[in-house]
Amino acid sequence: MQKGPLRYEGKAKRLYESNTPDELIVEYKDDLTAFNGEKKSDQHGKGTLNNQITSLLFERLNEAGVCNHWVKQLGETEQLVKHTDIIPIEVVVRNVAAGSLSKRLGFEEGKALMFPIVEFYYKDDDLGDPLINEDHIKLLNLVTEEEIQQLKDLALKVNDILLEEFGRCDIKIIDFKLEFGEDSNGNLLLADEISPDTCRLWDRHTNEKLDKDVFRQDLGQVDEAYRTILNRLKGVGAHD
Amino acid sequence: MQKGPLRYEGKAKRLYESNTPDELIVEYKDDLTAFNGEKKSDQHGKGTLNNQITSLLFERLNEAGVCNHWVKQLGETEQLVKHTDIIPIEVVVRNVAAGSLSKRLGFEEGKALMFPIVEFYYKDDDLGDPLINEDHIKLLNLVTEEEIQQLKDLALKVNDILLEEFGRCDIKIIDFKLEFGEDSNGNLLLADEISPDTCRLWDRHTNEKLDKDVFRQDLGQVDEAYRTILNRLKGVGAHD
Repeated sequence: MQKGPLRYEGKAKRLYESNTPDELIVEYKDDLTAFNGEKKSDQHGKGTLNNQITSLLFERLNEAGVCNHWVKQLGETEQLVKHTDIIPIEVVVRNVAAGSLSKRLGFEEGKALMFPIVEFYYKDDDLGDPLINEDHIKLLNLVTEEEIQQLKDLALKVNDILLEEFGRCDIKIIDFKLEFGEDSNGNLLLADEISPDTCRLWDRHTNEKLDKDVFRQDLGQVDEAYRTILNRLKGVGAHD
Repeated sequence: MQKGPLRYEGKAKRLYESNTPDELIVEYKDDLTAFNGEKKSDQHGKGTLNNQITSLLFERLNEAGVCNHWVKQLGETEQLVKHTDIIPIEVVVRNVAAGSLSKRLGFEEGKALMFPIVEFYYKDDDLGDPLINEDHIKLLNLVTEEEIQQLKDLALKVNDILLEEFGRCDIKIIDFKLEFGEDSNGNLLLADEISPDTCRLWDRHTNEKLDKDVFRQDLGQVDEAYRTILNRLKGVGAHD
């Protein structure tokens, strides 16, 4: 499929028009950024890996009944997705304390939470993507009260599926970020990506980090970590 | 009434035992602190003013059916309160954008909110009193889900009463912080204080600040601002 005009370029992906108006082509870039864009890198091969990982997980979520924007993988770094208007809320699910939750509540990194929690962040780079509560969401008129509940339910359902999917290949999913969009009929669809850029993923036995924290914290080869995730999900060398 | 042993000293108040085990004596200090204790001052007369303002408002809230810890004013800087175990949650109600809400959501200071909102902050100086959501509260095991709803309902009820009380004397209540405690029977009681230390209060006509922001932002005489609040509430020189 031929890419049409560039519609949008983000930090990690480009969106192009496709040959149908309700579908877009996503191109995964090799660019890697952290700390709201302050730390940057070009990780050769990252685009390919995240395209494959997201495709694999979104297909699995489709099968499990979680409506999402993914249609099919097109090439090494490209996938076809349904067009949605992205809701500017980052929905974060956490199973284990890490990152900003550890700082916020004083929980040691690695502390298992009593139950999975959901957090909402306002997707706004200028404001630094701040944590928001449900009153803030209503005030900003981002979604309705009913949709807030839908987002929470969907996020926890995705968590159940990811816990199972990663659990099968000896990976702990510590936390992850989801984005949702609305299609032209007003349906809520899971959108964006699910990859080591947007999840914290640790080896079950060694707690080795296999996600963007490798980049944030300069822990080693980012591409190797991401490739381990893909291989494990595909059942290749699950215990390498 | 004679003060017993000192039970607790905070930034703005001291708590002493009284001659009955379920009541304590609160002494309001002249100390004024801001930015989590980084800015400090001694404001002669502030303790007296806040004791009187809180006494006046808590008596009014008692009359309006909002159960609270206040029993009676004892002296210039002292009041008798029921003993409660303080819940480490700061419950903030906002009618108009200011302070951290303006920063968080990018709202200009002074922008009226479409409806009053409630925020919860984890009362922990070391963590900088962070914003928390309801999942965080459950995770920290601070109160039950039912009590979260009670806290929100009570906070909004207090807001209705304060809007009326301050509105009568031409003061806009922009936002305020409440704390709650549980008495020995497990009853939820409004506690702490309601004063220009814990509220943002602006003159209705001039938007002159008459609260702790005068201190935070070096806008003038703190004691004069606080005295204006007391005098207005008492109906003395309401339009000075």
